Amino acid sequence: MRKEMFNHEITIIRDTYRRLLRRHARTNLIKLTNKTHPADLAIVFRYFTEDEQSQTFALMRDDEHTAEFLTELDEALVKDLLQKESSERIASIIEKAPANDQSDILGALSVERSQSVIDLLKQEEQEELAEIMGYPEDSAGAMMTTDVFTLHEGTTSGNAIKTLQDQEDAEMVFYLYVTDDDDRLVGVVSLRALATTPSDTKLKDIMIKRVHSVRPETDQEEVARVVAQYNFLAVPIIDPDERLLGIVTVDDVVDVIREEATEDFLQMAGAGKDREILLKSSWENARARLPWLFASWIGGIIAASLIGAFEHMLESIIVLAAFIPVIIGMGGNIGTQSSTIIVRGIATGRVDVGGELKLILKEMRVGLILGVLYGLLLGFFADFSFEDAPSNLGIVVGLSICASMLLAATIGTVTPLILRKLDIDPAVATGPFVTTSIDILGVLFYFVIAGSILVF
Amino acid sequence: MRKEMFNHEITIIRDTYRRLLRRHARTNLIKLTNKTHPADLAIVFRYFTEDEQSQTFALMRDDEHTAEFLTELDEALVKDLLQKESSERIASIIEKAPANDQSDILGALSVERSQSVIDLLKQEEQEELAEIMGYPEDSAGAMMTTDVFTLHEGTTSGNAIKTLQDQEDAEMVFYLYVTDDDDRLVGVVSLRALATTPSDTKLKDIMIKRVHSVRPETDQEEVARVVAQYNFLAVPIIDPDERLLGIVTVDDVVDVIREEATEDFLQMAGAGKDREILLKSSWENARARLPWLFASWIGGIIAASLIGAFEHMLESIIVLAAFIPVIIGMGGNIGTQSSTIIVRGIATGRVDVGGELKLILKEMRVGLILGVLYGLLLGFFADFSFEDAPSNLGIVVGLSICASMLLAATIGTVTPLILRKLDIDPAVATGPFVTTSIDILGVLFYFVIAGSILVF
Repeated sequence: MRKEMFNHEITIIRDTYRRLLRRHARTNLIKLTNKTHPADLAIVFRYFTEDEQSQTFALMRDDEHTAEFLTELDEALVKDLLQKESSERIASIIEKAPANDQSDILGALSVERSQSVIDLLKQEEQEELAEIMGYPEDSAGAMMTTDVFTLHEGTTSGNAIKTLQDQEDAEMVFYLYVTDDDDRLVGVVSLRALATTPSDTKLKDIMIKRVHSVRPETDQEEVARVVAQYNFLAVPIIDPDERLLGIVTVDDVVDVIREEATEDFLQMAGAGKDREILLKSSWENARARLPWLFASWIGGIIAASLIGAFEHMLESIIVLAAFIPVIIGMGGNIGTQSSTIIVRGIATGRVDVGGELKLILKEMRVGLILGVLYGLLLGFFADFSFEDAPSNLGIVVGLSICASMLLAATIGTVTPLILRKLDIDPAVATGPFVTTSIDILGVLFYFVIAGSILVF
Repeated sequence: MRKEMFNHEITIIRDTYRRLLRRHARTNLIKLTNKTHPADLAIVFRYFTEDEQSQTFALMRDDEHTAEFLTELDEALVKDLLQKESSERIASIIEKAPANDQSDILGALSVERSQSVIDLLKQEEQEELAEIMGYPEDSAGAMMTTDVFTLHEGTTSGNAIKTLQDQEDAEMVFYLYVTDDDDRLVGVVSLRALATTPSDTKLKDIMIKRVHSVRPETDQEEVARVVAQYNFLAVPIIDPDERLLGIVTVDDVVDVIREEATEDFLQMAGAGKDREILLKSSWENARARLPWLFASWIGGIIAASLIGAFEHMLESIIVLAAFIPVIIGMGGNIGTQSSTIIVRGIATGRVDVGGELKLILKEMRVGLILGVLYGLLLGFFADFSFEDAPSNLGIVVGLSICASMLLAATIGTVTPLILRKLDIDPAVATGPFVTTSIDILGVLFYFVIAGSILVF
């Protein structure tokens, strides 16, 4: 329901565009573009053919609206769209965007292309852009806005309001940042505080002094966490001398949180980390998904070799083969549950450093509880439904399920914790490792248990 | 690195508390609490023993700081903490919170307990709370702030600033909402626009007229999407007569996005949807994770029965058993990849209604590409490593992997799309259904293919 409402609007805009494009209704197309929110236009473009995309883009003006549209557009589409455009037009559009958005748009182009656009910008813009592009991708520096409103701590609130009124640039003013004689960030004043104090009060008397700030090299996930934790609208970025470099605003943080969640989802499922994967070709899709499947293939041939080694046991008790899927399946599933809970817990800060052992023991307990339960269930099933089977089959199968589930819960918990210790993103490697190792170990335990109980 | 920085601060606060609690240093404990951000305190509480929790809480004042702390605290901990408190103290604390936070805190208590607290509140607060609590959980109405700043469209910007300065209540003022003679919401004015226009300009001349609003029954995910899409700081909520009921602010939206992502993660892995699962006991954990494992168990016994039915074929070609794990494993993994991509695409609005067929065909192509690749790889492996096996084993295994992967990619794509059509949250049921059905169908296809190629 709720999603259809949203899709409904997008569908209307798309259909209107299509109708106007068919009729080559130039004036109406320009009007429609001006009326449509850049973020909506960016979504509509996903459903356009390449031809519809270039026709629409050709009619767009080199203004702020178009710059914002490019900022919102998927990187894959920006790449296709700008490939056919002159460097002059690109420069003339992105000149209207703030430096962090310029950097995002240029990131979709080839290095040479991007450089030829940069060369066309004003000296001052080039410098600002160079600074932003100098920070690592996904860092606070790469996403910061440098248009920040700062005032000296000795300014009166009345003068601050006047200066604010003259300021045209600083687009999203939430807080006034206050500096001392050495240009260091010493406090922050909310617009509300400013508006509600007598005009001769000095900023240093109404500012909040403990300002939570981050460094430009801080990872964007950490920035997002600070903003979410303290309900900030913006977080300041300072250099080692505590001088204000810029701010990261909450709207960019919202995007980061959504994007990081999507990347974690895809990585946990071994489907790469490209959140635009739905826009990519089947070949590109296959390539992104190949590595995890390769891990799973390796696991599979090891399991096959293991079963091959136990061929003689299988020959005499053929029914053992029937329970291979359920033993590795139940193990795989409980392992996925454990690893998902831990990986997500690490991402949201719920898994603290120091409490690992307690966590592992708890997950092992969960594995044991569920292992005993499903071991009993499967043991009874094995005894009752396979009547020509050896009398101890139920015990073998029950014990194996229990062992496989206990083991899987443990591996699912320990793996992400170890990866974090090694400074590897737990979301990347946990999925493949957990399911593959359970395929192998589940089979191994099963045959070892069967060997010691059934064959004397 | 980055996470350790954050954890480091929390660890310092926690250790300081522990030291002071041991020494019963009352005055210092009170000072520390006042100095600690409520959100930090809420995290520190996760690592306290029950005794440390009650001691610390006993020293907290009945003020806004404590109310905010309770709002930030995990529901499970709120429940434990307030169980021992008098209704009077709870009422005296939550009185300081806005109605939406009051409703959250009371939601952790039993119905009777919650009612006894409500009875102690002022009549006016009771009414406001009743309104909020009347909206469905996870709706815009349940999370809205009713303290909104509205002015008539005829007000001059100078008078608006004056009124704003007298206003103490509306805590997070980002925009001024403008109403007409019938009290309908007709526009919005940013604080910036207000500050930068001559004081005799009427609001109706500077307001933005097309206001994007939602209804109180709108799901919180849709609200989050609107805020994220248009970079809003707040979104107004209106009734059928277009009268303003309240606003949802971006800080609450940030929480929703994080929480929804966590819930989707857990649901996809069949681990329930309780984002506080790490705080729960092993028993509660086991209970939350039981249902998916039951689906997997059912799938397992069906697969076992199927293999039992093909016992005679297995008896003559025992090596067939060796490839069961890899065939269902590779299928399961590619199915998980497909379903994750689709489920996440639906959640983020990247999978539009209408493009389903194209999407299914594309995923089938990916399944086929990867199926052929890994089929060849596995076929060669089977032929070379199992020398006493029938000569066509490689073909059987290769074809089966290919079929299993093609099938799995298809099921993984189709299942969430069908669930969406049926208005069921795709994250809930996709995981169990996809892996279970591939366990069964993978085995079935494998033996049917083996039967038609190997046995005449």
